[in-house]
Amino acid sequence: MQIEIHEIARQVGGRVCGDGKRVIEGIKSLEAAEPGDISFFADTRYADLLQETRAGAIMVREEVPGFKGPQVIVANPQVAYARVAALFQRALPRYSGVSPDAFIHPSARIGAGASIHPLVFVGEDAFIGDDAALFPGAYVGARARIGARTVLHPNVSVLHECIVGNDVIVHAGTVIGSDGFGYVRDGGRSLKIPQIGIVQIDDGVEIGANNCIDRAALGRTWIQQGVKTDNLVQIAHNVVIGEGSLVVALTGISGSVKIGRGVILGGQVGIADHVEIGDGAMVGSQSGIMRSIEPGEAVTGSPAMPHRQFMRIAALTARLPQLNERVKKLEKMIEALGPSVKGRT
Amino acid sequence: MQIEIHEIARQVGGRVCGDGKRVIEGIKSLEAAEPGDISFFADTRYADLLQETRAGAIMVREEVPGFKGPQVIVANPQVAYARVAALFQRALPRYSGVSPDAFIHPSARIGAGASIHPLVFVGEDAFIGDDAALFPGAYVGARARIGARTVLHPNVSVLHECIVGNDVIVHAGTVIGSDGFGYVRDGGRSLKIPQIGIVQIDDGVEIGANNCIDRAALGRTWIQQGVKTDNLVQIAHNVVIGEGSLVVALTGISGSVKIGRGVILGGQVGIADHVEIGDGAMVGSQSGIMRSIEPGEAVTGSPAMPHRQFMRIAALTARLPQLNERVKKLEKMIEALGPSVKGRT
Amino acid sequence: MQIEIHEIARQVGGRVCGDGKRVIEGIKSLEAAEPGDISFFADTRYADLLQETRAGAIMVREEVPGFKGPQVIVANPQVAYARVAALFQRALPRYSGVSPDAFIHPSARIGAGASIHPLVFVGEDAFIGDDAALFPGAYVGARARIGARTVLHPNVSVLHECIVGNDVIVHAGTVIGSDGFGYVRDGGRSLKIPQIGIVQIDDGVEIGANNCIDRAALGRTWIQQGVKTDNLVQIAHNVVIGEGSLVVALTGISGSVKIGRGVILGGQVGIADHVEIGDGAMVGSQSGIMRSIEPGEAVTGSPAMPHRQFMRIAALTARLPQLNERVKKLEKMIEALGPSVKGRT
Repeated sequence: MQIEIHEIARQVGGRVCGDGKRVIEGIKSLEAAEPGDISFFADTRYADLLQETRAGAIMVREEVPGFKGPQVIVANPQVAYARVAALFQRALPRYSGVSPDAFIHPSARIGAGASIHPLVFVGEDAFIGDDAALFPGAYVGARARIGARTVLHPNVSVLHECIVGNDVIVHAGTVIGSDGFGYVRDGGRSLKIPQIGIVQIDDGVEIGANNCIDRAALGRTWIQQGVKTDNLVQIAHNVVIGEGSLVVALTGISGSVKIGRGVILGGQVGIADHVEIGDGAMVGSQSGIMRSIEPGEAVTGSPAMPHRQFMRIAALTARLPQLNERVKKLEKMIEALGPSVKGRT
Repeated sequence: MQIEIHEIARQVGGRVCGDGKRVIEGIKSLEAAEPGDISFFADTRYADLLQETRAGAIMVREEVPGFKGPQVIVANPQVAYARVAALFQRALPRYSGVSPDAFIHPSARIGAGASIHPLVFVGEDAFIGDDAALFPGAYVGARARIGARTVLHPNVSVLHECIVGNDVIVHAGTVIGSDGFGYVRDGGRSLKIPQIGIVQIDDGVEIGANNCIDRAALGRTWIQQGVKTDNLVQIAHNVVIGEGSLVVALTGISGSVKIGRGVILGGQVGIADHVEIGDGAMVGSQSGIMRSIEPGEAVTGSPAMPHRQFMRIAALTARLPQLNERVKKLEKMIEALGPSVKGRT
Repeated sequence: MQIEIHEIARQVGGRVCGDGKRVIEGIKSLEAAEPGDISFFADTRYADLLQETRAGAIMVREEVPGFKGPQVIVANPQVAYARVAALFQRALPRYSGVSPDAFIHPSARIGAGASIHPLVFVGEDAFIGDDAALFPGAYVGARARIGARTVLHPNVSVLHECIVGNDVIVHAGTVIGSDGFGYVRDGGRSLKIPQIGIVQIDDGVEIGANNCIDRAALGRTWIQQGVKTDNLVQIAHNVVIGEGSLVVALTGISGSVKIGRGVILGGQVGIADHVEIGDGAMVGSQSGIMRSIEPGEAVTGSPAMPHRQFMRIAALTARLPQLNERVKKLEKMIEALGPSVKGRT
């Protein structure tokens, strides 16, 4: 694909400095770009790469004096990058229509324009929305609903009755609607609590690869609009995650946790059951959350504490050997004061 | 489905206070219940919900004065809830018989009443027990054995020679019998140690979604009767997990670890290789276990220590800034005592 | 299978003490071995097992006085064990040729001797190398390349354009080429950054079960020759892992991390984005890496520090109650010195 710089500028709402007719054939990082590529500069940590790049053009916030090719000046080069990358992205290969080698229950309904690959299974009374795409190995259980334009990547399992909204992306290997981990002790054995609720995933959500989202014991596990999860995330029964929240890889969210809007959970975070995380809170990687977190709080650590306190305590912990020496020295000094001091305590 | 209260009471071994003829159509939480539903009260943290619930009936330990509908008095409302939820649970949709679109090796034996969906693969000399159910994407390798009434959810892989007992549930995406992580350094490269053992899973076990249970290097990895694992659990080669133990999500158990009966491992726990965990021990979430744990011990932390000690040390760690200030103040005081003190040390 | 001891000795480059004609039928651990088995002794922690074993023969570094059967003396019994286990290992059951029940796009090319099981999907313009084996549920996307002799276990997904080298093993349920977790805030919502790069996996790599390896945003995520990963490992976009490095289970590696050669990452490690880990570094289990690590360093902890310092600080942390008591005692002693001291500060 070939695009002229002025067309790129138009698409990202930018202004051209230099030759707007220059033809661009791809987008690459500053390090990897060749003269036919456009690149972008957004992270000041990498300012020196600007001097060395072979890119034919760049998208930047302010004009770069030394750069020889055309520049596109934009308010947010990262957003511009996302938009230009979309121009150069090859469309996912879609099976055209419903493959005769997919297994679709006669009672299931398939929307117009849906792409159903071979080796897909769609169960009784399930519903697949218009223009949805189901890749090989995707499983949609009985009475489950998949929204319009939603993509289920290979080997995704959406179990019975679960609801996936419109414009959702579910990456490969993810399981939606497995049973929650619920047992009650009954005469020395673990009696299974039937998990008869569902998972509901709202519009515009993206779920990473090999996630597990358990169905509710009763009611629903609910992933609200625009939530994004990374890979290998565990979401237990009856969890609610509010609009636009982000969950990084290998994080585990226990049963009935309520997470607000715009929350960011770092990687490998663990959250105890029934805890609430307020809107806009941020949880550092590897934190362990035992108690509810107020809106807007930034916490880290296991058990978690305010992020600044964590940083201070981490520094003091690293100096424990010195603290120990200081106390030893004091002890010697007091010792040196002789029996008079000790006698008085 | 409709059941009268006296029938529910009979099924859970309870006593009715109020109208035993009241018809119930579902079970919901106290918050979500409507007049046609029964609910239950087991967790005293939610006592105020009892006053507000719209539930038509409740299961409780002792009669609740303010509640207007019929009450079922039971010794354990949680157990009663599990039993009543089972009454209202819809059966899993089962394929009737063996689908012609499953791939069953001619030498494999399939028990009476087994449900084999399309897109299932059963290898050479494998055995599937009576009334077992294999969902689409399930893979059973050569010479593997799946017990009676066992359910393999979609996209589960049970590799060659592994043995899964009766009444086992394996949730979607789980892998049983992958190679253990075993290499030996040989002239600067990692030589693979062939993993020629198996996985044996005993009766009544439930394995969560996207688990990995590695086959033994030699001998067997052994998950004993009634063990329950949550999602995304890693069980390495030659691990033994004793009867009735519970393993919460994202926990990793290294090679040759021996876990006793009735052990509870919290979420995101890591256990070093060859460690033993005694019967009835409890390990707090995110703990790191480097040494063997005695029966009945409750430990937390990384490295783990007795749970009470962990709580005390977590509190002291959070007060390190104050401790540091106290030592500073002592230093100033000693300093103020002048050269006489310092001279004597 | 039956092998005489002198033949085993020949294969492992060892020397026989005792009856070289003894016939061996299997290899087992010292504990499990029967008179028909050979075993091996490599780990001095288990020296007492040597006295009790029923093994018919053993492989050892030095002759064991008490043992009655033939002994094979080798420089490295662990390497010898790996080689002998390979002799007794049953070959993986391979489908002979390309199953008519696999779905191969007409434009895909399949190498000579490749084993393509039923229920495999190979997309447009994909390439499968000679003697490769694809198990049921394996998915190979458009334009992806799978090398010679490479094995994709059941339900593995290799997405479009990704490159897997020769002699690679990918265990069941693993996803290669899912989208990286990349968004940019754009007017209050998360705009997806298209992930238009690939994953490249070099020769001789082994990837555990249920791993996730994300495609690069731009360019490639690169797993170099001989790398081995355990189960449930997360590798984000644009990560590079150098030759021969080992990654233990449940570890998460964030975007653009560069890992050198011969690095060992323990289990449940987390590494922040853009960090570099030098050649030969070792990272202890459950560590959190926020800053780059020098070649050869051994670090542990979250945040990580040199391993020895970590051990010392862990010991001091466990004695915080005592340190607190010591400071209290000093405070009392100083208090006892009376107003004269306090007046001077």
